[in-house]
Amino acid sequence: MSYLKPDFLLENKTAKIIYSEIKDLPIFDYHCHLNEKEILENKPFTNIFELTLKYDHYKWRLMRNAGIEESYITGNKTEEEKFIKYCEALQDAFGNPLYHWSQIELEEYFGCKLEINKDNAKKIWDYCNEFLKKYELTPIDIIQKSNVKYICTTNKIFDDLTTFEKINEKELGFKVFPSFRGDDLLNIETECFNELVDISCVKNLHDYEVYVEEKIIEFIAHGCFIADIGFEKVYINKEKYIAENVFNKKINNEHLEENDIHAYKGYFLYYLLSLFSKYNIACELHIGPKRNVNTSKYRKLGPDSGFDIIGDDTNIDSLKALFDDLSINNSLGKVILFNLNDNNNKTYLSLIGAFQNAGNNTLIQYGPAWWFLDNKKGIYNHLDDLANMGHLGSFIGMLTDSRSFLSYQRHQYFRRLLSNYLGNLYEMGEITDNLKLIIEVAKNISFDNALRYFSLK
Amino acid sequence: MSYLKPDFLLENKTAKIIYSEIKDLPIFDYHCHLNEKEILENKPFTNIFELTLKYDHYKWRLMRNAGIEESYITGNKTEEEKFIKYCEALQDAFGNPLYHWSQIELEEYFGCKLEINKDNAKKIWDYCNEFLKKYELTPIDIIQKSNVKYICTTNKIFDDLTTFEKINEKELGFKVFPSFRGDDLLNIETECFNELVDISCVKNLHDYEVYVEEKIIEFIAHGCFIADIGFEKVYINKEKYIAENVFNKKINNEHLEENDIHAYKGYFLYYLLSLFSKYNIACELHIGPKRNVNTSKYRKLGPDSGFDIIGDDTNIDSLKALFDDLSINNSLGKVILFNLNDNNNKTYLSLIGAFQNAGNNTLIQYGPAWWFLDNKKGIYNHLDDLANMGHLGSFIGMLTDSRSFLSYQRHQYFRRLLSNYLGNLYEMGEITDNLKLIIEVAKNISFDNALRYFSLK
Amino acid sequence: MSYLKPDFLLENKTAKIIYSEIKDLPIFDYHCHLNEKEILENKPFTNIFELTLKYDHYKWRLMRNAGIEESYITGNKTEEEKFIKYCEALQDAFGNPLYHWSQIELEEYFGCKLEINKDNAKKIWDYCNEFLKKYELTPIDIIQKSNVKYICTTNKIFDDLTTFEKINEKELGFKVFPSFRGDDLLNIETECFNELVDISCVKNLHDYEVYVEEKIIEFIAHGCFIADIGFEKVYINKEKYIAENVFNKKINNEHLEENDIHAYKGYFLYYLLSLFSKYNIACELHIGPKRNVNTSKYRKLGPDSGFDIIGDDTNIDSLKALFDDLSINNSLGKVILFNLNDNNNKTYLSLIGAFQNAGNNTLIQYGPAWWFLDNKKGIYNHLDDLANMGHLGSFIGMLTDSRSFLSYQRHQYFRRLLSNYLGNLYEMGEITDNLKLIIEVAKNISFDNALRYFSLK
Repeated sequence: MSYLKPDFLLENKTAKIIYSEIKDLPIFDYHCHLNEKEILENKPFTNIFELTLKYDHYKWRLMRNAGIEESYITGNKTEEEKFIKYCEALQDAFGNPLYHWSQIELEEYFGCKLEINKDNAKKIWDYCNEFLKKYELTPIDIIQKSNVKYICTTNKIFDDLTTFEKINEKELGFKVFPSFRGDDLLNIETECFNELVDISCVKNLHDYEVYVEEKIIEFIAHGCFIADIGFEKVYINKEKYIAENVFNKKINNEHLEENDIHAYKGYFLYYLLSLFSKYNIACELHIGPKRNVNTSKYRKLGPDSGFDIIGDDTNIDSLKALFDDLSINNSLGKVILFNLNDNNNKTYLSLIGAFQNAGNNTLIQYGPAWWFLDNKKGIYNHLDDLANMGHLGSFIGMLTDSRSFLSYQRHQYFRRLLSNYLGNLYEMGEITDNLKLIIEVAKNISFDNALRYFSLK
Repeated sequence: MSYLKPDFLLENKTAKIIYSEIKDLPIFDYHCHLNEKEILENKPFTNIFELTLKYDHYKWRLMRNAGIEESYITGNKTEEEKFIKYCEALQDAFGNPLYHWSQIELEEYFGCKLEINKDNAKKIWDYCNEFLKKYELTPIDIIQKSNVKYICTTNKIFDDLTTFEKINEKELGFKVFPSFRGDDLLNIETECFNELVDISCVKNLHDYEVYVEEKIIEFIAHGCFIADIGFEKVYINKEKYIAENVFNKKINNEHLEENDIHAYKGYFLYYLLSLFSKYNIACELHIGPKRNVNTSKYRKLGPDSGFDIIGDDTNIDSLKALFDDLSINNSLGKVILFNLNDNNNKTYLSLIGAFQNAGNNTLIQYGPAWWFLDNKKGIYNHLDDLANMGHLGSFIGMLTDSRSFLSYQRHQYFRRLLSNYLGNLYEMGEITDNLKLIIEVAKNISFDNALRYFSLK
Repeated sequence: MSYLKPDFLLENKTAKIIYSEIKDLPIFDYHCHLNEKEILENKPFTNIFELTLKYDHYKWRLMRNAGIEESYITGNKTEEEKFIKYCEALQDAFGNPLYHWSQIELEEYFGCKLEINKDNAKKIWDYCNEFLKKYELTPIDIIQKSNVKYICTTNKIFDDLTTFEKINEKELGFKVFPSFRGDDLLNIETECFNELVDISCVKNLHDYEVYVEEKIIEFIAHGCFIADIGFEKVYINKEKYIAENVFNKKINNEHLEENDIHAYKGYFLYYLLSLFSKYNIACELHIGPKRNVNTSKYRKLGPDSGFDIIGDDTNIDSLKALFDDLSINNSLGKVILFNLNDNNNKTYLSLIGAFQNAGNNTLIQYGPAWWFLDNKKGIYNHLDDLANMGHLGSFIGMLTDSRSFLSYQRHQYFRRLLSNYLGNLYEMGEITDNLKLIIEVAKNISFDNALRYFSLK
């Protein structure tokens, strides 16, 4: 029997009371990488490997850190062999978030209470696959069982947005909305950008801007209210003519220098954020990762295979300049700032506090603990730093940022930690005796603040 | 009724015992921004807004982070409307230091036990203003009630220092001393510097140095034993002739390049610290903030309005060079190093340890948790890192760094946290069983070490 | 009587059980600075000063931070006076690792239960010196009493390696092995390097490489399986011809520019790591310190006197490039990465996870909390970050990195903290109920993982 108890992570009575009040609230997953087509198709999952290990580079990294050979991770071993090795690695991965996540997933979605370890690995493999055969678990089943009400996927500019209408008209008890991903529009040095220019047939930056704005309007027409941009470094350039020159060089297949690329990115990031502000779209900025640092593995396995790392650049000077430029032009709208290195929490929270505009709906938010920080310690640090430097009661809470349907348990995980954080403050006598008020704050952070922030209420 | 209990922040029996022994000790507030003229004039405060929200950018920041419109912060709403909005923001600002500070201030100085929240806001407004009308609370009342014995203000070179004599000859039970602020002397690029040169009538760097030294002697004659300099970056330049050239350019109204400014600052910082050492003045170095980063708000509201942020430069190489240069010339005296980013605690504490001179009174001190770090987490981090890397028993303790007379409660706050820190070490069996010795350490940090360090005993 | 209790640092029942299972395990001290000749000579220690204060710059730093004059630290006071001052400084050094270490050493190796403080200082001095006279305590006595099984010293290229055979053939119940220190081979700008070139008589880089490889083979023949390199900055240069030119300049006594030095170091670091990989030698990289920053003290006292500080450069870009280059050429072998600034824990752990090769024995390890981090907080941070970002169950555990024979108590200290860390996870319900498995993990980290990692089992 697994170590999971009903009071998992809840250290005191108050924490338990708070959690009991928020655990059944619906989920607003305002950023994820689920594939909306899979939701529409709604095909039953074939086996537990497909649902857990097939695409999950978090798990691959853990297996590598446990000394497991690559053949058992992305190589030629069978799915069963791989799954069993994963269970083996998990057995003594104490303190790792996957140790908790995988165990919760097993219990929540399969009703399986076996502890994940070497001895039980084969039993779990058999049990889960039996379960999947018997109950024909589908994406929609998981979403409904998880009580998800809103899902915002992450979409490329050419994605077929009719998929969203097709899902939503089924009235499944939840809605799925597209988010507008800006990365490809910015990354002028990449193959994706070439493709973009080819398909759009634009010939200069002005036309490109018009084209992008039309696309945004189209996204909005299909329900979009969130955009997302990710990068390691923030560049600053407000001179449009420089960006125009770079764009022309690109169109003419001329070589772009490093500073060309930076100048273009600087200008176009500013342009995109202005547009998002104009259309009241909240923009998530995901800052910090250095991607694909292991060249030989990247050549074999491609991106998103577990070879990204945490950078050490806060970008504070360029972020400050970006926010300031936008603010001067009244173009700093809803921004949600994500950070990969919790050393930066205080610096970023001080920045946010210096650029808040008035009115609840244009607040800059400090996005929840992300990726390498999405674990017990990272979430507590986030809550604590946000509370110290910002305003905890206004926080819009958790998201999954995940490619996996099983990740909805992370909202449960977050809510337990949130309840415990508030419960501790209460039991230590550091906040109001009014438990009703505390529960209201917990509910706001769990669901209602996001509704309000994204103007869905 | 508010959540504040007598044992607020004191988690165990030992913590309570220690706190009972230090809570009534006098306060040595060796750095603040109180206006000595206000102390001398001693006018009663007109209302609670004047005492709390009128100038306090900490509170303004919190309100902005809570999504409150600027009209309720620095705008045209009435004082009552603003105060009520502040109470509203505080209601769910769990974990924020202002959540505690404001509640303690209400209880300590007004005897008001109402919890600060939306429902009670109007009642608190009425109660406090009634109280102020009835008791005619003045600056001196607050200082005396807070058991403050020594206050060091922060003074410009042209401040009227006779104010201090006028206060001190009243024998109020506390003394107020001027501190010598070096910022204007360093910031050659500013309007203040022009003014300084105009008034002093100096024509070259040598005369300027003589002038500054005379001013320091004058400050000392009026009781000064502390200086203060604040900056984001430390520059290094030991070549006097370069600084002379820059100074001449300035006098001749020539344009100063960035590197001119840095060269001057580097030289003159070194010169100032040498002077302070010569006259046994302790120099506080406040390192780290980026100021006024929000241009559009700065234009409207000026400095100290809540638009400063935490920088990410440790300045470790330049600080190391500065200390080393001073040390080689036997000119490294009493320095109190302040830091705005607790990521840097260990780096700075290692630096301090490498430049300690012999003898208790010339110790380099690691200043207490400052500004964005002046909160429960920041104070514990400071104590813990200082204990690990330095020598806790020698610490000179807390100061307010505040413009507000009510801030003396922060000494109470600090003493609670210190008692709890030591109490926990005791209860965990990590320090001596000799409670008397522990209490002595707590007393030293609360008051006696500062007395000794500043040679007042 | 001292505050040390049998359950020191063990907060709960489970922690106590775990500790009882690992406290008597043998010690594998895979990195230290003990002098193997002193082990061979095995002379009894003359007094407690020799064993504690004589060479220990950790203690000197603490004394300086406590405001003690240098004459009592490295100056002309008597050994007894110095020892007594140290006890005085320790009295209120709450929270400092030396406060614990010194007390444990006193109890473990002298059976002395007096608390270290001013009052007891003279008594302790007398007691310990009496004890040393009576029992003639020697290096081997301490090693045996500490249940050390394997010791890896840190050796220069010309050290007499026969010492190791002479020790090991005595069959003392422990073995001592040389480690290959690479610093002198890299630091082309130093006097040591000149010496090296003189003695080796090499005339060009190629011959030098051959010479170094032969030396490594010789070390291996004497039992070496670990190398060690320490530096503040990692340089990148894969162009051998540049390094050859620099080497030739050096041979011809030409002046080396900064970039010459960096280019040489970049190339030769890469070369050394490739060699270590070729011979399956685990290489410890100690990254971060700025050394000898206090020039005037350095001139008087030389290196290793307490004037080193923590740098703020993560080196993440160059480390990433180094690992990537090695990985592309299949030359990234066993590396143990040490870090002096726990801000970097997550960054480094993400890097490690991106470069794990398959197979348990070629794992990159995250070395335990080192130097300024080797204390309660640093060790917990290390364990927690490693658990979160890596795989706790694979960790090879503690080492002393010490010049002092008494430092073996730090393994006890670490094992208590490890037991407490795991015990807390268990009591909080965050890991398996299977205590046997938890104890196995604790045993692995305490001893068995190191055995396996270094292929001694």
